[in-house]
Amino acid sequence: MESLSVREIFRNSNSYFDQTIKVSGWIRTSRLSKTFGFIELNDGTFFKNIQIVFDDTLHNFKEISKLPISSAITVEGKLEETPGSKQPFEIKATTINIEALSSSDYPLQKKRHSLEFLRSIAHLRPRSNTFSAVFRVRSLVAYAIHKFFQERDFVYTHTPIITGSDCEGAGQMFRVTTFDMNSVPLKDDNTVDFSKDFFGKETNLTVSGQLEAEAYALAFRKVYTFGPTFRAENSNTSRHASEFWMIEPEIAFADLEENMALAEDMLKYIIQYVLNNAPEEMEFFNNFIDNTLLDRLNNIVNSEFGKITYTEAIDLLKKSGENFEYPVEWGCDLQTEHERYLTEKIFKKPVFVTDYPKDIKAFYMRLNDDNKTVAAMDLLVPGVGEIIGGSQREERLEILEKRMEEMGLNKEDYWWYLELRKYGGVKHSGYGLGFERAIMYITGMSNIRDVIPFPRTPKSAEF
Amino acid sequence: MESLSVREIFRNSNSYFDQTIKVSGWIRTSRLSKTFGFIELNDGTFFKNIQIVFDDTLHNFKEISKLPISSAITVEGKLEETPGSKQPFEIKATTINIEALSSSDYPLQKKRHSLEFLRSIAHLRPRSNTFSAVFRVRSLVAYAIHKFFQERDFVYTHTPIITGSDCEGAGQMFRVTTFDMNSVPLKDDNTVDFSKDFFGKETNLTVSGQLEAEAYALAFRKVYTFGPTFRAENSNTSRHASEFWMIEPEIAFADLEENMALAEDMLKYIIQYVLNNAPEEMEFFNNFIDNTLLDRLNNIVNSEFGKITYTEAIDLLKKSGENFEYPVEWGCDLQTEHERYLTEKIFKKPVFVTDYPKDIKAFYMRLNDDNKTVAAMDLLVPGVGEIIGGSQREERLEILEKRMEEMGLNKEDYWWYLELRKYGGVKHSGYGLGFERAIMYITGMSNIRDVIPFPRTPKSAEF
Repeated sequence: MESLSVREIFRNSNSYFDQTIKVSGWIRTSRLSKTFGFIELNDGTFFKNIQIVFDDTLHNFKEISKLPISSAITVEGKLEETPGSKQPFEIKATTINIEALSSSDYPLQKKRHSLEFLRSIAHLRPRSNTFSAVFRVRSLVAYAIHKFFQERDFVYTHTPIITGSDCEGAGQMFRVTTFDMNSVPLKDDNTVDFSKDFFGKETNLTVSGQLEAEAYALAFRKVYTFGPTFRAENSNTSRHASEFWMIEPEIAFADLEENMALAEDMLKYIIQYVLNNAPEEMEFFNNFIDNTLLDRLNNIVNSEFGKITYTEAIDLLKKSGENFEYPVEWGCDLQTEHERYLTEKIFKKPVFVTDYPKDIKAFYMRLNDDNKTVAAMDLLVPGVGEIIGGSQREERLEILEKRMEEMGLNKEDYWWYLELRKYGGVKHSGYGLGFERAIMYITGMSNIRDVIPFPRTPKSAEF
Repeated sequence: MESLSVREIFRNSNSYFDQTIKVSGWIRTSRLSKTFGFIELNDGTFFKNIQIVFDDTLHNFKEISKLPISSAITVEGKLEETPGSKQPFEIKATTINIEALSSSDYPLQKKRHSLEFLRSIAHLRPRSNTFSAVFRVRSLVAYAIHKFFQERDFVYTHTPIITGSDCEGAGQMFRVTTFDMNSVPLKDDNTVDFSKDFFGKETNLTVSGQLEAEAYALAFRKVYTFGPTFRAENSNTSRHASEFWMIEPEIAFADLEENMALAEDMLKYIIQYVLNNAPEEMEFFNNFIDNTLLDRLNNIVNSEFGKITYTEAIDLLKKSGENFEYPVEWGCDLQTEHERYLTEKIFKKPVFVTDYPKDIKAFYMRLNDDNKTVAAMDLLVPGVGEIIGGSQREERLEILEKRMEEMGLNKEDYWWYLELRKYGGVKHSGYGLGFERAIMYITGMSNIRDVIPFPRTPKSAEF
């Protein structure tokens, strides 16, 4: 007999009632009496367990009764409806075979564990309810992102991880090297001779694939990246990881308006996809992690996002009478407290803030006619603040070069990026979505370490 | 008026005949006479160009006539059928607006360029026919892989890129560090003090996510990874890159047979997906890159893959009378010449070779009862040789520990991997598919540098 997945049984239970079926999985919990017992079996394909009932007519009743939690078994038996019970059905076992024993010191016993403790057993935590839900949702969000862009004929572009350049002209980076650290080759002037390193030059881990994505957008019109990016900042917060994934769409023949429309469509699409495809997990998050979650997400899906310029936002914040920790002045960067006030108190829905002062934004953003602001946009969402940042890119070669000079960037390092402006470099726009920030937002989890299977943070690269 | 994509026009041309439409794109070529001209316009959304006809009734006829290749324009005009012509239809332009000029030194002029030259302009090469086809197919294959696994309820697992361990216990790795290379901290014994590095230990770029994927398969039953992996080997061949992407599915409650069935289904699925979704690109590859391509791919989709043990394969190779460069003996690793002989001459279709000698395979592969071979499988395909390698994993703790001792691996480094065997570590299997190898196979491209947008190889990390 072929095994069924627990997902298949829950999704199509009507097809299996009163039939003998076979299922394999791991014991999550069991309750026992002298002559019969119950097992909650989970096979990993579905958030919920299936209940197994067995009794002493089994030849190995005693053995089965003693199985430690997390032992793996294969059960054959009849699927029976259980009206009035907590669970909708159960399997009356006729045979139970042991697939693999667990040891009685299995760390994930019934009692609740702290998230901190569970991080120390990252190889086992996906077997818990919380992390089973988090990492299934993570998988579904990743797929929803691909599906959204592919359905719109975007080309998925794999930008390089190891890079000789630094997209933002800032940010601490990890070096990649094959040097023997005990004898790094030096030049005559005692500086490091990187020409002897693996790639013949200094190389780092990428902080963004945007510049390369621009090259591809000017070939394919619509592209997106989805890959790992890195920050070597020594910031031990609940919102920063040294290694995280980022999505960066880039569209040619598109201005900031079209960029915002794409971001809004994308965010609604992925949230709706998860609500449709992981209802059990989302209900769990709403019950146990954040009971405003479903309201918040439904609000996003159903509202038209607001729009406001940075200058207008500063005015509103100044007029608010609110006592912010960081004072508000035109020219300052918005802090999370300002962002949350705008989206939670003023708009009560997601809002795009546009046209930031050029001095607080990156060199590649398109200068507005006022010569003071750039065609940037940040999307702020309730409960979080900024979740997406993007801009129209500066396509005018002279202005771009001038900005780079003002910011002290070496134009030679960007020769190919500048060339894109020479050969049919039409207007184009794009944005970045931090994948883990999105997962935190969609699950309600508040520490980035709890939405990455094996997180990397300062002083921590276990597993 | 809304712009249409060239893809939309080609796919649904019937809906637009004799209507006025608007389209934006880049000039690929143009032909001119005194009073009229033709432009081949490409907007990146479709492999083929759309033909624009214009004449001197345009107010800017002279300006348009002089536009260099790769300038961007927006055209309005009527879509007209052109029976008997090379192209099925054309747009009779009523207005043409210039979106962005190109410079007349644009490097991608009409004449054919060598692949080597095009590598030196990796930021522009996706605008050529060959690379437009390669990178659209790359995107589609990536999506087909996600679609295949997600439709089967596999959980996409992001395994770490920066790692403190080394999956295969071998292979040269890139170090990741934030040390100042000019003053690396040393311990009293003059060895490097890695406790002072960013992660508090030695860290490298991953060579495989398999071990972590196993942890997740024992939670979710069916998982897959799809991410970048790295090799710091100084091998400058057409088949090796320092940075490439890999797909690694891992399934619990599954033996080697189910593993092979999954690999066969997956490979057929992604090939069929590309044949269905990129017919123009695939026809181009068949005409200009490898004229056996479509036959070869159709053969894969339609044949049941062969199966043979390593021991049987060695016998067949010895009996073949073929004069191999590398002599064949039981215990030797199969070389590409052997692999191709098996799949091309003997089977004439893809074939799985199973049960290799334990001494030439990794420590984690399951030991067979003969105590000499392991439950490994390699999939060999005509024209290439090995494209997939996998195995059933050793789930028996004592045997796994013994293998690790024999191979000189430090068990403490693998504490969590070993623990998976203690807590319900059922039989499980998985395999790895090198993404770029698959793209080379599906496109017929023979150099891995030509299927990666910005390839990284020894002494080369440009862009």
